Amino acid sequence: MGVSESQEDLVRKVFQEELADVQQRLVGLSDEVLVAITKAVEAFNTSNLHLAEEVIGGDERIDDAAVDLDELSITILAKQQPVAKDLRTVVSALRMSASIERMGDLAGHIAQLARYRFPESAVPGELRAGFQRMGELVIDIARKVPILLQTEDDSVAREITAQDDEIDTLHQAVFDTVLAPSWKGSPADTVDVTLASRYHERFADHAVLIAQKVVYLETGDWKDSSIS
Amino acid sequence: MGVSESQEDLVRKVFQEELADVQQRLVGLSDEVLVAITKAVEAFNTSNLHLAEEVIGGDERIDDAAVDLDELSITILAKQQPVAKDLRTVVSALRMSASIERMGDLAGHIAQLARYRFPESAVPGELRAGFQRMGELVIDIARKVPILLQTEDDSVAREITAQDDEIDTLHQAVFDTVLAPSWKGSPADTVDVTLASRYHERFADHAVLIAQKVVYLETGDWKDSSIS
Repeated sequence: MGVSESQEDLVRKVFQEELADVQQRLVGLSDEVLVAITKAVEAFNTSNLHLAEEVIGGDERIDDAAVDLDELSITILAKQQPVAKDLRTVVSALRMSASIERMGDLAGHIAQLARYRFPESAVPGELRAGFQRMGELVIDIARKVPILLQTEDDSVAREITAQDDEIDTLHQAVFDTVLAPSWKGSPADTVDVTLASRYHERFADHAVLIAQKVVYLETGDWKDSSIS
Repeated sequence: MGVSESQEDLVRKVFQEELADVQQRLVGLSDEVLVAITKAVEAFNTSNLHLAEEVIGGDERIDDAAVDLDELSITILAKQQPVAKDLRTVVSALRMSASIERMGDLAGHIAQLARYRFPESAVPGELRAGFQRMGELVIDIARKVPILLQTEDDSVAREITAQDDEIDTLHQAVFDTVLAPSWKGSPADTVDVTLASRYHERFADHAVLIAQKVVYLETGDWKDSSIS
């Protein structure tokens, strides 16, 4: 009986270590995305080809790590058959990894815009301040994601949502600029800023999806996990 | 003993019904997306405001159905603790519902472009043939998704991937047109076709993600589920 209990304890301990590993890998992935988006924003706003190449070259590593994390999560579901909050942790990891991986892709897309236009800038002068601010916001959001994953703090989730709202406003302002009679940009400028603005906006959207899943993780209520 | 066995049979029967329900809901969701994208493409190519409004108004129903499906999948994981192929079915449903829901969003975005420019057309004359073809392809891909979900037929998965490749080529051709010296479109035209082309391309990408998950469902191998 004593032996059986200590075996159970051991199984439980292994399981808790596996859950901690899942969480640690999610945090690690989001740390990599923070590095990628920081470089991508700098590459985009300052036409830095070297940084752009680094981001584009590094995206496959993020994709592979996300696939490995998914495999680990599915193995845990199969072997440990978790319930309650443990189950929510694993299911959320599966869904959050998809968003984090997508954020890495979007950082890559922003870097590609910089590379494609190099040595020219992809950012026309009159939109420089707007993209500067959007860049600061997506970097700050990316900085908050690993913090949110570690602390599961509702207030961090709400900050991300508020910053996403500001990005949506800036995204709309880009269209207002481009569609105004005063816009003198070339078609290439118009394409670049349309896509760049969209990529920033989608990056922030995925952070909001992650924030919603962290709220779900705490409450267990998927439908009411809207934090807007 | 006989009683216990028949109880087990009953539990197993309920479980199989739940799995069939998950599959049926996924098929139902993808049928709704087929209706949405068919209307959205028509609305976009022919400036049909009525159809555009229908797509935009119907998207919330798809979003809600996707959330309900996720809740059902998580409940099954918690209550039934499936293993092997049953586990893969539920995990895949969770991930595929996210892509199907996103395809519904993208149909809505295409419809919004039509509504925003109505009564003018969002499609400049010289790009009409290209968008016509892209529209046919996304509708055909959307038609194949419920078939793929029901048959789990590898050849359907490969057809979707081949059509996605053709869409990528058409997407690139839109940029070639817009960036050519001969392009006479307004900035609004440039923004609309850039976004519209991107939405068609992303719609097809999500179908490819679903096709990859169906291959995973069959093989159990996540890494080798690439069908390109």
